[in-house]
Amino acid sequence: MAAENPAPTTLDVGALADLLDGRWAELRRHARDISTEPEMVSIPGQPMAEHRERVLASLQRLADAGEVQRAFPTALGGEDNPGGNIAGFEELIVADPSVQIKAGVQWGLFGSAVLHLGTEHHHTTFLPGIMSLAVPGAFAMTETGHGSDVASIATTATFDPETQEFEIHTPYRAAWKDYIGNAAVHGTAAVVFAQLVTNGVNHGVHAFYVPLRDTSQDKVDGAHPMLPGVTSEDDGHKGGLNGIDNGRLAFDHVRIPRTNLLDRYGSVAEDGSYTSPIASPGRRFFTMLSTLVQGRVSLDGASAVVSKMALAIAWRYAEERRQFTGADPEAETVLADYGTHRRRLLPLLARTYAVQLLHNDLLERFHGVFAGEHDSDEDRQDLETLAAAAKPLSTWHALETLQTAREACGGQGFLAENRLVGLRADMDVYATFEGDNTVLLQLVGKRLLTDYGRSTAKMDVAGQARWVAERAGDMALHRTPLRRASQSIRDWGSRARSAEELRDPAMQRELLEDRVETMIEEIALRLRPTLKGTPAERAAAFDANQAELVEAARAHGELLQWESFTAALEAVTEPATRRVMVWLRDLFALTTIEKNLAWYLVNGRLSAQRARTVTSYVERLLLRLRPHALELIEAFGYGPEHLRAAIATGAEAQRQEDARAHVRRERATGTAPVLEKHLADTRDGASGPKVAQPV
Amino acid sequence: MAAENPAPTTLDVGALADLLDGRWAELRRHARDISTEPEMVSIPGQPMAEHRERVLASLQRLADAGEVQRAFPTALGGEDNPGGNIAGFEELIVADPSVQIKAGVQWGLFGSAVLHLGTEHHHTTFLPGIMSLAVPGAFAMTETGHGSDVASIATTATFDPETQEFEIHTPYRAAWKDYIGNAAVHGTAAVVFAQLVTNGVNHGVHAFYVPLRDTSQDKVDGAHPMLPGVTSEDDGHKGGLNGIDNGRLAFDHVRIPRTNLLDRYGSVAEDGSYTSPIASPGRRFFTMLSTLVQGRVSLDGASAVVSKMALAIAWRYAEERRQFTGADPEAETVLADYGTHRRRLLPLLARTYAVQLLHNDLLERFHGVFAGEHDSDEDRQDLETLAAAAKPLSTWHALETLQTAREACGGQGFLAENRLVGLRADMDVYATFEGDNTVLLQLVGKRLLTDYGRSTAKMDVAGQARWVAERAGDMALHRTPLRRASQSIRDWGSRARSAEELRDPAMQRELLEDRVETMIEEIALRLRPTLKGTPAERAAAFDANQAELVEAARAHGELLQWESFTAALEAVTEPATRRVMVWLRDLFALTTIEKNLAWYLVNGRLSAQRARTVTSYVERLLLRLRPHALELIEAFGYGPEHLRAAIATGAEAQRQEDARAHVRRERATGTAPVLEKHLADTRDGASGPKVAQPV
Repeated sequence: MAAENPAPTTLDVGALADLLDGRWAELRRHARDISTEPEMVSIPGQPMAEHRERVLASLQRLADAGEVQRAFPTALGGEDNPGGNIAGFEELIVADPSVQIKAGVQWGLFGSAVLHLGTEHHHTTFLPGIMSLAVPGAFAMTETGHGSDVASIATTATFDPETQEFEIHTPYRAAWKDYIGNAAVHGTAAVVFAQLVTNGVNHGVHAFYVPLRDTSQDKVDGAHPMLPGVTSEDDGHKGGLNGIDNGRLAFDHVRIPRTNLLDRYGSVAEDGSYTSPIASPGRRFFTMLSTLVQGRVSLDGASAVVSKMALAIAWRYAEERRQFTGADPEAETVLADYGTHRRRLLPLLARTYAVQLLHNDLLERFHGVFAGEHDSDEDRQDLETLAAAAKPLSTWHALETLQTAREACGGQGFLAENRLVGLRADMDVYATFEGDNTVLLQLVGKRLLTDYGRSTAKMDVAGQARWVAERAGDMALHRTPLRRASQSIRDWGSRARSAEELRDPAMQRELLEDRVETMIEEIALRLRPTLKGTPAERAAAFDANQAELVEAARAHGELLQWESFTAALEAVTEPATRRVMVWLRDLFALTTIEKNLAWYLVNGRLSAQRARTVTSYVERLLLRLRPHALELIEAFGYGPEHLRAAIATGAEAQRQEDARAHVRRERATGTAPVLEKHLADTRDGASGPKVAQPV
Repeated sequence: MAAENPAPTTLDVGALADLLDGRWAELRRHARDISTEPEMVSIPGQPMAEHRERVLASLQRLADAGEVQRAFPTALGGEDNPGGNIAGFEELIVADPSVQIKAGVQWGLFGSAVLHLGTEHHHTTFLPGIMSLAVPGAFAMTETGHGSDVASIATTATFDPETQEFEIHTPYRAAWKDYIGNAAVHGTAAVVFAQLVTNGVNHGVHAFYVPLRDTSQDKVDGAHPMLPGVTSEDDGHKGGLNGIDNGRLAFDHVRIPRTNLLDRYGSVAEDGSYTSPIASPGRRFFTMLSTLVQGRVSLDGASAVVSKMALAIAWRYAEERRQFTGADPEAETVLADYGTHRRRLLPLLARTYAVQLLHNDLLERFHGVFAGEHDSDEDRQDLETLAAAAKPLSTWHALETLQTAREACGGQGFLAENRLVGLRADMDVYATFEGDNTVLLQLVGKRLLTDYGRSTAKMDVAGQARWVAERAGDMALHRTPLRRASQSIRDWGSRARSAEELRDPAMQRELLEDRVETMIEEIALRLRPTLKGTPAERAAAFDANQAELVEAARAHGELLQWESFTAALEAVTEPATRRVMVWLRDLFALTTIEKNLAWYLVNGRLSAQRARTVTSYVERLLLRLRPHALELIEAFGYGPEHLRAAIATGAEAQRQEDARAHVRRERATGTAPVLEKHLADTRDGASGPKVAQPV
């Protein structure tokens, strides 16, 4: 080990930080620092009611300082900067995930719905109050009976030409709006999604601006009284995010003016006639929903932030904490020098880089669409598919990283003062809200199947990956043409001659890409015979392939992460830093391949001998990276003031120094007792008594 | 799918319940029912201080009713029934994991230490107060600076012959006792582990009974004042188990009588001379620690309980909840009929059976040792190894099951009222306390290596598995002789001719057992050349193999689970039930093999073609088991009164019936609006308008 573990080269941490923080690095760092202010940060164990009020105050502080309005129109005091806005927003999780998500409810969902689904009248009437937080609001889409299947919500908005009003109505219990942030206490208005009915025709889901509470009356228990016909019910305690007042809403024939329909994609005239710029009800629905993609984009970025924080906490502790003696009988071994510890944490470090770098590409793409630079239908669809692939991987990755970090810190990891458990509790729901992860991966899988179906002459399922890669333009690896799976099988035999070849990015890319393509091709071939069957037959065939389709989508996401990581290496110019970053990218690639090694073996892409070299090369990379891990983590830019974890402050190192000082004093004064087992050694003629080594 | 999914046969649920609840089924069910009482159950969001007092009251209720004293001597009001005591104790987690763990601190750790490490004087003096809860106490072993490495704790107990006292002392900050239940508020005494020093010699870690708080003075903030020299510090909020007052303790030259040394394994005479029935300090240390194995045993059982509860909640919801339309355009599909949902939950159901059935064997073995029926040194060592293998697998399994269940329930899963998030938060620390899971698996791995080293003519690393299997005595599969890996490789070629053979238990056993044996053999061969090297060389070699050793230990644990599951099948006599249980065992075996498929391929144990049949057979088993899943879960014996989850009460089914009734009314009255897309169909000449299908 010692031979593999030379004194660490100093990396260009600043350059890595710039790479990770991306195009809006300044806004990101500014938000990160705001998130250390006392009025912003979480307080472990704070009772729910107080936590909710504290988080509302944090939002007011952000609104007052103009920190959260960058996505809104310049004319209304914003900056028309959707990408920069999200970059800053993501870092608010450093303060308290409840602050981030409540801000997301107010400005990312409620405000964005008015911005993107409304028109001039709504912007000028409603946005100022939303931007200033004068009107805290709810985004009332999900119903108790319908989560991911938004098209099937049952709340109705029926137009009454006599009064020029819509009547918002909840027909039964399953149609109550549920899990709605700001619904239980603070929200005084909501964007409500409902089936628009006029002249006896249901035109599908539309959004309506609906007042909820009577702000002319004083608050009772923190909330203004409900308006007539509106009922609210508290969702109560949750697994996390208890600073947000999630609740349920029901509407009993509640009337709102005709003009409260957010009518960018569908409007109702005074006579009740319906018009829309999009003829197909299906396409109209998906266009409306697509304006809300920023929720997924920002959860992806927030997951990267939290993963970085978790590693910063756990690795700092791993570098200081000692347990059991090993190579050196005079000193206990630091956790970071244990094989199991490296194996648990360093692959997560590599994947965290991959998650952040893919996120940066996703965010650039989001900005391109929403700043109007590239916003064709195809751009929007690609953005949605990219977000649907990135968000499940990153949110699950954050949960895995937090849990592994918490276990790696033992009992310390379980204490609230070290933050890992609190962050994990809050992040839990990221896996199922703003699109259930499994459902999102199915969407990605279906898109891959569609793309496969469209391209007959040539497989073309990696379109997303290509988009990312094309940005790197001149990368030689990209000139490698795609190959059919059948060719690939022949090729691996000759190409994969040695472990060295696993370091070849072209080889890594082909292994990752080939897996996606082959899985999709196999599923498509299995589904094809049933395409002309009955609905039941088609459903059964799809069901039988559903789990594998999700796996293919996951593999696609991992390919995208690899592409972003590889493209980003171009920007790393300092040689030592670049070498370490290549190792880190290799570790990401090889652990991803190792995770799916059975697939490569079953499908003849790797021989058994080559497969063994995957694991041995991973082990070698772990040893090489270990001395650089702390610098790779320093590049994240989270200091003790951001982490607020007692074990990430050097406290453990200080405790150990105190212990060593005690032992030195005992030795100097000859007051240390003799160990019984060393007495026995002496009797047996072994070397003389030794002093106790408590540390 | 329909063809594979016939009307379910009714299983013999009662017989399955008896099998699962095991030898002490009555005590188990009694404790389960006590755990529904209002004064016992958790209250989501209860502030920490109130939670701590409520849990103390729950313990008093248990003590007053004589529910928790069964392990103690009959002479003192106990029942000398260690196994039955643990069986009941495990079910307390149904009420509130904090109740379970605080009871574990009081009677399982504090009380057990006095019982097993003390002698007559300590039993008669201290146990009555401990059993009645008149003396709430702490088990002060772990220090901030030393968790798993108990031998290195730095607290000292130095004998002073002049006063016939031990002086308990904390020499520096890292030596503070930490994470100690009952230390922050309620504990008035503690068993403190410290290095026993007398006549200038350190005789290693011993246990001492030490008063902490002055019960003659009134409580302040719920706690009696500290005695002179004793300092307590609150660990504050934790990731879960906040009903327990964990804290830190420091001792500044605190004096206790000589007779407060718990002296079963080592005593100090009035002149300060030390004697012990065990000559070797190392063996003495491990003997003392081995008396505390019940903590690990009971966490294993509690993890099984929680896994069963999580599946009962999630599967009930999966059978009722509908989302998206599939085969039937008139009705949405229940979650349980989705391929991804089956894939996520049913393998966990199979593994939960395996966890419970191995636990039952572990508990029998524990009882054998502690009731004095089989308590040789070898019995105790085997018990420890078995517990060290079982506890990591079951605690991680519980966390995985809770998380998968929570995600499978979407937003509902995140609400505290559905319990999954609260249970998960509480269970988190089970992975690292009472022996860190990774450290325990290393111990198992080392034992396997030792056993391998001892047996030269024949591989014999599956001794534990054999113990379990021998209980099944007449099982034909056990007559299959063990084979060398090299033979096995040749054999698989001919034996594994078809998927059918994967159903052969002898085949399953060989695949699972061969993996453990081969991994251990490979590690042993790699370590052998370094055995005569320097300490640093040996440490480096061990470090390089550490991650794989942990994997081998995990594989060993899975083999044990499979053995227990297979042995238990003998007791299932009703043919339909037996058939389903065989499928469930097969699902456990095949998903375990599938998880490690790469290993079987790399090592030539399965051909690529055979490997494909593993996954296809798993898919077939999932379809076969799906109609029986609810009955398999009913056998767990957890009704709505135990689960206390709103979604496990039929509420979702009622909501859906209400929704369907609404649609029927709309159809009957002709008030349903026409869907816009169906209007378009009509214009295109397709079939006439249809009513909306909101459910």
